[in-house]
Amino acid sequence: MKKPRNEQGVIQAIERTFRAGRSSTLLLALGDDAALWRPSRGKETILTCDWFLEGTHFFREKHPAGAIGWKCLARATSDIAAMGGKPSCFLLSLALPRRFTGKWLGDFLRGLRRASRSIGCEVAGGDTTPSERILISVTVLGEIHPGRALLRSGARPGDLLYATGTLGEAASGFEQLRRQHGAPRTANAALRRHLYPKPRLELGQWLAEKRLASAMMDLSDGLSSDLPRLCSGSGVGARIEIRLLPVTSEANRHQALEFALHGGDDYELLFTVSRRKAELLPPHVRGVKLTCIGQITREPKILLVDEKGALIPLRSGGWDPFRDKQAIR
Amino acid sequence: MKKPRNEQGVIQAIERTFRAGRSSTLLLALGDDAALWRPSRGKETILTCDWFLEGTHFFREKHPAGAIGWKCLARATSDIAAMGGKPSCFLLSLALPRRFTGKWLGDFLRGLRRASRSIGCEVAGGDTTPSERILISVTVLGEIHPGRALLRSGARPGDLLYATGTLGEAASGFEQLRRQHGAPRTANAALRRHLYPKPRLELGQWLAEKRLASAMMDLSDGLSSDLPRLCSGSGVGARIEIRLLPVTSEANRHQALEFALHGGDDYELLFTVSRRKAELLPPHVRGVKLTCIGQITREPKILLVDEKGALIPLRSGGWDPFRDKQAIR
Repeated sequence: MKKPRNEQGVIQAIERTFRAGRSSTLLLALGDDAALWRPSRGKETILTCDWFLEGTHFFREKHPAGAIGWKCLARATSDIAAMGGKPSCFLLSLALPRRFTGKWLGDFLRGLRRASRSIGCEVAGGDTTPSERILISVTVLGEIHPGRALLRSGARPGDLLYATGTLGEAASGFEQLRRQHGAPRTANAALRRHLYPKPRLELGQWLAEKRLASAMMDLSDGLSSDLPRLCSGSGVGARIEIRLLPVTSEANRHQALEFALHGGDDYELLFTVSRRKAELLPPHVRGVKLTCIGQITREPKILLVDEKGALIPLRSGGWDPFRDKQAIR
Repeated sequence: MKKPRNEQGVIQAIERTFRAGRSSTLLLALGDDAALWRPSRGKETILTCDWFLEGTHFFREKHPAGAIGWKCLARATSDIAAMGGKPSCFLLSLALPRRFTGKWLGDFLRGLRRASRSIGCEVAGGDTTPSERILISVTVLGEIHPGRALLRSGARPGDLLYATGTLGEAASGFEQLRRQHGAPRTANAALRRHLYPKPRLELGQWLAEKRLASAMMDLSDGLSSDLPRLCSGSGVGARIEIRLLPVTSEANRHQALEFALHGGDDYELLFTVSRRKAELLPPHVRGVKLTCIGQITREPKILLVDEKGALIPLRSGGWDPFRDKQAIR
């Protein structure tokens, strides 16, 4: 059992964990007032930050420290994927109860380092302070060629609407976790997806480089919450065909559809493609399935086409922590 | 009395407050998955993040919302000043109790906007979520010419040690605030300094451009906590002359010295200069006094020279929130 650390001790634990992680683009990381980073010549910088708070986004009794470390970075870099960019480095704001500065911190940092290496995003700096709850905010810097970033505002009426991978699997994993007592002992694919999400970085970059998508965002809060944001950004509406949704195979189809429409945490990409360019889109890219799930409409409504062809308005049932009491994401 | 907002409402309040704040370097701020920023050609990027937490760094009953908005950005940009850089843009991670999303949020954002305009640092993006306490993390990006950043590691034995402005005034202001009941009605210079600190940005840039300083950092936790960090970074010690400390004129000299040595929140710069270059240093730069307070020594100890010439080891009495129970900074 490791002893609690003071502020200097927490910083040293971070420095030791990430010692091997420097590169030619990070000129100075950790240990000074600030970090020094060399932006690539001619590229634009993508900036995003993401809260990951105990009690809102995770529970200390349910979520292993290593998964919290992995996920706080993975979900923040998903916003870089959503623009079509390549992540470069991140800053970690970490506030902890004193008794979590020993073993818990070590496990957390190892999970964070695994994500950092897997994603190719190095720690640049951070700040630590004590608090009653575990508080995490991660800022990620990414890069992209000028003019290539895929925004929410580019969708046009008639464009086809696509989702990557499968939808609803992470929500199904979280449902399992909720039903279990305490922390998970084993994890199937759905639970692993909830605990260790993988942002669609290569696919996002591929879509941006090929200039195939007209608009893009990531699915973090659920299709029914995120699609209205894309539509609002573009001043359009959308029609989704329920039969086309890439749900995971589940015995309970109703439950699977609920998760696919309203479950969050999938970190898939949602993007639009003009009909002309849609012909150039392969069914799989880098091993990930691309599924047309509907189309963009001029009328600014979001409608579901059910399996009998009837139109149903899509209510936003995804995750808004300011509204939802049973908060998790 | 304004009504509480949901997540979209909080984001809209931020967007409305900062609408006028875009520039040619911020290509896309707020409203998409991430922000797009154009780094200046050939410059290095400085990155820093800073917690500002209710109960640790401020109290909601004591600190006006506008001062919290001002200070969260000002103290984060002080790390950019500490490197000699120019701030460019920031990201705001803000978590709030639902009942603080009305008037409190408006006052907070107006304070933040005043700091943003005064400092010349624009909002690029952010994240919001509800929480029981007010949680703030600010990430700032700054820029500097390659090789000009002033680090903690450059001090050499024999260098003279300087501080800008005056030391201990913010601690004196906080002491007043603690003694008062509730929020302050009026604020004298010391209390204003605690509530609305001004990072030494121009002076830091001047020192970096002129290549006068060998090492630099900002004084955020107090001289007796921060000086050991500079000395440790450079592998040196220091000797401070008590009679030279630029204390504010106070009736109680003992108290003023305590605040100057151990009080934090001044956001002055602490820097070292070789004896040869010290001759080129004017007594004031951009209206700010530069005071030689001692020198760097080969022996890695930090000693005070008292007014009778006796040597006293300097104990670290500044602020470490992991150690101090009565936390404030």
